[in-house]
Amino acid sequence: MESLRISEHHYRRRVQFVEVDSARIVHFSHFFRYMEEAEHALWREAGLSIAARGDGFGYPRVAASFDYHAPLQLEDEFDVYLRIVKITRASMAYACAVSRGGERIATGALTIVCVTRGEDGRMVSAPFPADVRSRFDVAAEAGA
Amino acid sequence: MESLRISEHHYRRRVQFVEVDSARIVHFSHFFRYMEEAEHALWREAGLSIAARGDGFGYPRVAASFDYHAPLQLEDEFDVYLRIVKITRASMAYACAVSRGGERIATGALTIVCVTRGEDGRMVSAPFPADVRSRFDVAAEAGA
Amino acid sequence: MESLRISEHHYRRRVQFVEVDSARIVHFSHFFRYMEEAEHALWREAGLSIAARGDGFGYPRVAASFDYHAPLQLEDEFDVYLRIVKITRASMAYACAVSRGGERIATGALTIVCVTRGEDGRMVSAPFPADVRSRFDVAAEAGA
Amino acid sequence: MESLRISEHHYRRRVQFVEVDSARIVHFSHFFRYMEEAEHALWREAGLSIAARGDGFGYPRVAASFDYHAPLQLEDEFDVYLRIVKITRASMAYACAVSRGGERIATGALTIVCVTRGEDGRMVSAPFPADVRSRFDVAAEAGA
Repeated sequence: MESLRISEHHYRRRVQFVEVDSARIVHFSHFFRYMEEAEHALWREAGLSIAARGDGFGYPRVAASFDYHAPLQLEDEFDVYLRIVKITRASMAYACAVSRGGERIATGALTIVCVTRGEDGRMVSAPFPADVRSRFDVAAEAGA
Repeated sequence: MESLRISEHHYRRRVQFVEVDSARIVHFSHFFRYMEEAEHALWREAGLSIAARGDGFGYPRVAASFDYHAPLQLEDEFDVYLRIVKITRASMAYACAVSRGGERIATGALTIVCVTRGEDGRMVSAPFPADVRSRFDVAAEAGA
Repeated sequence: MESLRISEHHYRRRVQFVEVDSARIVHFSHFFRYMEEAEHALWREAGLSIAARGDGFGYPRVAASFDYHAPLQLEDEFDVYLRIVKITRASMAYACAVSRGGERIATGALTIVCVTRGEDGRMVSAPFPADVRSRFDVAAEAGA
Repeated sequence: MESLRISEHHYRRRVQFVEVDSARIVHFSHFFRYMEEAEHALWREAGLSIAARGDGFGYPRVAASFDYHAPLQLEDEFDVYLRIVKITRASMAYACAVSRGGERIATGALTIVCVTRGEDGRMVSAPFPADVRSRFDVAAEAGA
């Protein structure tokens, strides 16, 4: 059923002390972790684990970026909106918007690929397994 | 003297256990930290600290990205090549190439801005202090 | 009113991908961050921030330890129980129990001290401010 | 040959920006990572990897602690001295001293156990493999 497919996720989070740098703002590297936490929550909402044990598939990241508009500060509560913007046979792209009380904080993008371990142990590109692909769809609108 | 200006830096590093994920490869977020470690080493080579105490200036990141070509694995030794590719009145852009024994691992970009604290405590854009600006130059060639 | 004092806190959390190592279990260093997240949640429950801006006081850690009984795994949901076990004029000690569905995972301890910046900028021990001390009390029972 | 056994290691490191908190000192959780980096360097000096692929053995941590005497600050260079203080059939204990230019910064302890995967996939205690045990010895003196 089309309606059961997942195409976006809203993730809420509080800034933790260890994520804040000496300027009292969130270190830029943590936004990539926030985006990934939202992604894995999206997969859980779809009934999946991004790192399911034993199925032989993995989802390494091939591109990741953030533009930073305003800083997040200690103990701020903030929102991460993640949307699927593209799905191909063996890759998926997300757009990410981080905000705090309606204020635009950061805009991110993430592309993952589906891989499996080849005979020599190296990761090789592979189509998404059908039971993974069938859970996701591209979000209807691309706007944040 | 022009020749004392710094425009690129080579940084060598070993993958640490905590940086490796359950697929036994470096988690993608750590590449942003490797790039930043190389940046701060470049600043030290220029006789500066990116977070000098008490001078009132800061250098938040406004854009950061990586494309990942091949995985880094536990205890790998790798190289980070950082080059300044653009300097404006109040911003600086770096290009970053991560490699291991000549193999291309990842390609990154980072843009920072110079800010100072305004009267209300908020960070506002400011031109680089002269003694900072005078230490840096754009790298002669843009190729990795 | 005595009854408004806070002496313990229950904090619920899910294991995130970046916290898991190549053996697919949570890296031991993250337990110290879980304990600290619970501590800061306890302070918020008491109406305080551990890193309040501008009041001149800080709370560095002087001792921290964990004994590990069983591993936490990817996407596990777990509980952190933090209790205040001792308060002196300028220090506070917590006991911490991490569990998952009733299974004992790890047992921790943390001691913090109250400091302020001396005239030379160095941190020096100081009694807790009255409005901080008045919010906390030692937990009635010390058992996990 | 007894003389080839490793019992201690000296590890040198610089504080990185991401390791520093809003009080401009190293976050206490990073000392556990410094201690582990030194441990893995000690194993490499002994010709081993703490996470060798495919041999079926692992070395989870069962206890870790630090006492903090003085703060480390941004870009400080510091020393980690790690010594083996006890070896049993299936466990090993280290003592760790962190210092900066002779100043005592922190004192740590770490105990690891040797495990292998049982038939049900759970980790079970196991004696150190002979080629691992033969590389290590308890340090002659226990003093820092």
